[in-house]
Amino acid sequence: MNIDMIRAAARRIEGHVHHTPLLSSYGLDAIAGRKVLVKAEALQITGSFKARGGWAAVSALPAEIRQRGVIAFSSGNHAQGVARAAKEHGISAVIVMPSDAPIAKIEGTKGLGAEVVLYDRVNEDRDTIGAQLAAERGLTLIKPFDEPEVIAGQGTVGLEIAAQAAEYGVTEADVLVCCGGGGLTSGIALALEAEAPGLRARPVEPAGFDDVARSLISGQIERNASASGSICDAVITISPGQLTFPIMQRLCGPGLVVTDAEARAAMRAAFRHLRVVLEPGGAVALAAALFHPETVGGPAVIAVASGGNVDPGLFADVLAEKD
Amino acid sequence: MNIDMIRAAARRIEGHVHHTPLLSSYGLDAIAGRKVLVKAEALQITGSFKARGGWAAVSALPAEIRQRGVIAFSSGNHAQGVARAAKEHGISAVIVMPSDAPIAKIEGTKGLGAEVVLYDRVNEDRDTIGAQLAAERGLTLIKPFDEPEVIAGQGTVGLEIAAQAAEYGVTEADVLVCCGGGGLTSGIALALEAEAPGLRARPVEPAGFDDVARSLISGQIERNASASGSICDAVITISPGQLTFPIMQRLCGPGLVVTDAEARAAMRAAFRHLRVVLEPGGAVALAAALFHPETVGGPAVIAVASGGNVDPGLFADVLAEKD
Repeated sequence: MNIDMIRAAARRIEGHVHHTPLLSSYGLDAIAGRKVLVKAEALQITGSFKARGGWAAVSALPAEIRQRGVIAFSSGNHAQGVARAAKEHGISAVIVMPSDAPIAKIEGTKGLGAEVVLYDRVNEDRDTIGAQLAAERGLTLIKPFDEPEVIAGQGTVGLEIAAQAAEYGVTEADVLVCCGGGGLTSGIALALEAEAPGLRARPVEPAGFDDVARSLISGQIERNASASGSICDAVITISPGQLTFPIMQRLCGPGLVVTDAEARAAMRAAFRHLRVVLEPGGAVALAAALFHPETVGGPAVIAVASGGNVDPGLFADVLAEKD
Repeated sequence: MNIDMIRAAARRIEGHVHHTPLLSSYGLDAIAGRKVLVKAEALQITGSFKARGGWAAVSALPAEIRQRGVIAFSSGNHAQGVARAAKEHGISAVIVMPSDAPIAKIEGTKGLGAEVVLYDRVNEDRDTIGAQLAAERGLTLIKPFDEPEVIAGQGTVGLEIAAQAAEYGVTEADVLVCCGGGGLTSGIALALEAEAPGLRARPVEPAGFDDVARSLISGQIERNASASGSICDAVITISPGQLTFPIMQRLCGPGLVVTDAEARAAMRAAFRHLRVVLEPGGAVALAAALFHPETVGGPAVIAVASGGNVDPGLFADVLAEKD
């Protein structure tokens, strides 16, 4: 896993995913007390950065293996990223999703032509379901984060941040990243190490699901007590990956933790000041930038707004809350 | 008024406004039955393309005149564009706004440091109020659309569309533009004439406020019966401008008209498929692309999503409606 793989992934995805903008606004600067630059991956095709890793992984498969199809486990954003890459490569995709995933994500995945297999989180084992399907049909599993080509694809976000931050004159800053298993965070960290060493990636997680922050402190992989119980479904994982954790340990600054209420307030701020729709899990990095400014140094901060696949009912509820 | 003024405006605004993305999504393509490319000016600093015209006009003033300050009449987006340009030039701005303008726009304008003077649309005459203030303080009026430097600034949207559409391989298409007085539409039309002659600008207006569409048919400036009565406040004007109409007459294709309900449905589609927040007036071009496909030719259509300054209560109401 190295910068050359990220650069190779960037060449493969070119023309197939959006270069997303690095946005700024006076309103966000006023809340945070410093310049806030937002990498708007919610505007990415399929609604999250996962389109990058999905394309990078599917396009890296040998043709004869790829044509048998792929399979993925996902609560939604990785599902859509893989489904979309499969669709454009003309191959089949099976996505195993929990039956309580957001409707927007289930519908989005089906809309991309994938076969969606729902399972009950409590009573069924997704690995058993997936292994059986993969064996029967010769499908290749695309893991959501602990897979080199996926990390390489997500790392292309870091290449873009390095170039775009320089246009703003920002070369020294913390880069706050919404973090589940660490694919995006570790990929960005590797890209920044090579392209913008004054920018430092830091994972941001929801309170109660801060496995990465705790792992960075203890120096070993820590686990969360639960796999559910936050509205930030996109960034809930049990623990960082075997591949992603060593990269984060070597390159990342300390983790940050935000509450669900702070994530919701960041969704409102992005609505008002950026006109960008964020899902809760895609808003945790912006929440840290806005509401925990004391934990960030320097005159500017960069936040990755990683996804925006949110059900309209939840979004309306969030808008109705008072700041 | 010519392409050289637009290119000069592009040089002046460079680094001061965002290059906004030209977005696509499978979901929008499926609704429209063709490729839909959306120029997301709602992501522009201040939330609309008006930041371009405001900057272009303020930066074009001679320094000794500029330093006395500027004044503008606006229901909101032009207000924020001018206020922001004034703030960054270190000069004062007075904005005369109707008291029933969206709260998001009044607050946004104040937040940019402008002095906001509210007036009653029914009982007060804004021109009288504005003329008195301008005379007392030596302020320069920045008109919202019928002003060459403002048209030049808005025309920079067209320069970007020409380059970005070519990256998608789209060189022949209708470019649907949310149209009030015609500053954006005429500026884009001039830019496309020079840079992408296979792209044709077409104005889109709300039903009952289709002064531009009717003017293009009759060949003379037509007026609307009313100045209010649509939720699309950003694109409600009495008639096209003396400068903008001849440009549109020479270069634009026939106008299109959408209902308020179609604008609201386009807001939902942009929420779901692009993760971009649009205000009603900023959604009319996308509404035409999605819901009047029979009036557009060719395999691709480009829609300018011109603004996203919308009150959260209205946005939540729109999300709650069923398609």
